[in-house]
Amino acid sequence: MFSFDIVGHSTESQARAGVIKTSHGDIETPIFMPVGTLGSVKAVSAEELFEAGAQVILGNTYHLYLRPGCEIIGRFNGLHRFMHWSKPILTDSGGFQVFSLANLARISDEGVTFQSHIDGSKHLLSPEKVIDIQACLDSDIMMCLDQCIQYPATREQCRAALAMTTEWAKRCKRAYQDSGNGHNALFGIVQGGMFVDLRRQSAEELMDIEFNGYAIGGLSVGEPVELMLEVADSTLPELPKAKPRYVMGIGTPENIIELVARGADMFDCVLPTRNARNGQMFTQTGTVNISNSRYKDDTDPLETDCRCYTCRNYSRAYLRHLFMARELLAYRLNTIHNIFYFINFIKQMRTAIVADKFETFRRKFYGKREL
Amino acid sequence: MFSFDIVGHSTESQARAGVIKTSHGDIETPIFMPVGTLGSVKAVSAEELFEAGAQVILGNTYHLYLRPGCEIIGRFNGLHRFMHWSKPILTDSGGFQVFSLANLARISDEGVTFQSHIDGSKHLLSPEKVIDIQACLDSDIMMCLDQCIQYPATREQCRAALAMTTEWAKRCKRAYQDSGNGHNALFGIVQGGMFVDLRRQSAEELMDIEFNGYAIGGLSVGEPVELMLEVADSTLPELPKAKPRYVMGIGTPENIIELVARGADMFDCVLPTRNARNGQMFTQTGTVNISNSRYKDDTDPLETDCRCYTCRNYSRAYLRHLFMARELLAYRLNTIHNIFYFINFIKQMRTAIVADKFETFRRKFYGKREL
Repeated sequence: MFSFDIVGHSTESQARAGVIKTSHGDIETPIFMPVGTLGSVKAVSAEELFEAGAQVILGNTYHLYLRPGCEIIGRFNGLHRFMHWSKPILTDSGGFQVFSLANLARISDEGVTFQSHIDGSKHLLSPEKVIDIQACLDSDIMMCLDQCIQYPATREQCRAALAMTTEWAKRCKRAYQDSGNGHNALFGIVQGGMFVDLRRQSAEELMDIEFNGYAIGGLSVGEPVELMLEVADSTLPELPKAKPRYVMGIGTPENIIELVARGADMFDCVLPTRNARNGQMFTQTGTVNISNSRYKDDTDPLETDCRCYTCRNYSRAYLRHLFMARELLAYRLNTIHNIFYFINFIKQMRTAIVADKFETFRRKFYGKREL
Repeated sequence: MFSFDIVGHSTESQARAGVIKTSHGDIETPIFMPVGTLGSVKAVSAEELFEAGAQVILGNTYHLYLRPGCEIIGRFNGLHRFMHWSKPILTDSGGFQVFSLANLARISDEGVTFQSHIDGSKHLLSPEKVIDIQACLDSDIMMCLDQCIQYPATREQCRAALAMTTEWAKRCKRAYQDSGNGHNALFGIVQGGMFVDLRRQSAEELMDIEFNGYAIGGLSVGEPVELMLEVADSTLPELPKAKPRYVMGIGTPENIIELVARGADMFDCVLPTRNARNGQMFTQTGTVNISNSRYKDDTDPLETDCRCYTCRNYSRAYLRHLFMARELLAYRLNTIHNIFYFINFIKQMRTAIVADKFETFRRKFYGKREL
């Protein structure tokens, strides 16, 4: 029940447009996935996500495993019904959070043991368990457990993490095959740090195992943007053309457009949602902070030509007032706009790719930012 | 453009059903008004209020005067467009907040001087200014400035506050007449503490001035429920039958039903919204706390036969999970249910009054609570 078809591509770049089919519906790529960490994209409802154009959201396995736990979500036959979202869900493997959030993460052959960041309780995430959890969540696109490393890291550290990632990927694939969960997809995650040859090696090893799609992990972990793009630039062409390519945890509109130009199809990031809650709003001409006093009596919407719920119904003055007064509605209205911005931005990009006008789109995108 | 018609009444009690007409639409009484302190009913949107059945909301003059201020709301020709709520709005006069929230409130003949609870800035609220602000908010139902006093208070304190309240009411009426704001209504507020004869005197003095409706202020300020009901019981019959009667700042479903039985038409309270944010949910069988661990794997909605958005789409387990994880959506979903509960409760009560079955309704209401 999982497939990927390319329906258009740019002749001036590697950008392509595709359709992923899942048992919960289609995903038009390139796609941006809002992050729903704990079974809720913070501050917005499923209906609002839908209205903003979201086709797929991301759930965090690590967080959901700790709270509310699989046993509870299992009673709803998965995350969709639990959180009242009927469209596709991609879940990460928890690897990234174990290494960034949890305490005392320790790697053994079996998996990773760690202490919960909430209550200090001890847990083990193994490749098998990670598949088990994601199957219980009924995730449409599951991710393999990978070993994320910090930046900078030595070649030796990267090589070791890569070896572990490949080993775990094999075990994830086996667990996936044994789980009878074949209607959902499993993606592998390329690691290798900032070493281009290790990235290539990781990609090859994963392709040997064969997955429904391939992700690039371990980017946007503190390295300069140029380095991130360089690594993506040399890794993306190594991945099979016929499978979706997902660059994890990225990012800004600028980074997304550059990665699409290099052949990436899928993105996720907390940027639109987290920044919304801090008052930073994305617009075609760049980001603005809604707390700025210049907006205090501004009766215009945030963006005059934006069709999101927020811009159709509320003024900058009202958004600023809510934000300054810390009204809960502020976080919602800001989040709706930012998600709409990201999704609409990438949707227009897709239209440009299908019409083979990607470079024109890219030029215009940067042109507006310079205004 | 303001009128009140009685369309039904109970022969077994003083309960009555009416329709208030305002230039922003009709209000079917008895009515519960959700509180939108700062131009937002906390955690919910105008559409959600509308869907929950809200016909009128309350705005707080004191809060809106301080933030964002009249000058800004004036640019939107009032609160309706500013906050994207097209139905009626009632605003209080700020009197209650000046005496409960602000610092150093000092009463002179001119009005009340006080320091803002936000930044300590000094302000004066006079009867004229209070009308001015409410006219700027384009409030459909404006309230006179009154002097609220603490409980307990001596007879002398109550008498002095009552005299001041009458004096201010006269000035409010004059300012209202001069303001050319006649399409909106002005209500007087009965004071007099817990002294029944002072309450009667206050009512009479206000009726001499003539208002579009009459409110009872200074209740639910710490006195026992029995005393509150006793004062309301002897004050409500003093008020004109042909005008709406509003008991301010009340309250629980139990208090509302008892006050309706005594002839009250309008209510406002932060209870459903504030308690929702603390996880306390109103149901037909009483209140429940959603954080209770018994709900942790409960796949049922909060109330099986409730038609609110929350109960139609979410389980107790999900509500509990969101609340425990402090997800912003928790506050919204809880608030939607509680507002729906209050509005639906009073709507059913109204239907019972029109059918002259109020006592049956009251009996059933208490019967369910004893389950």
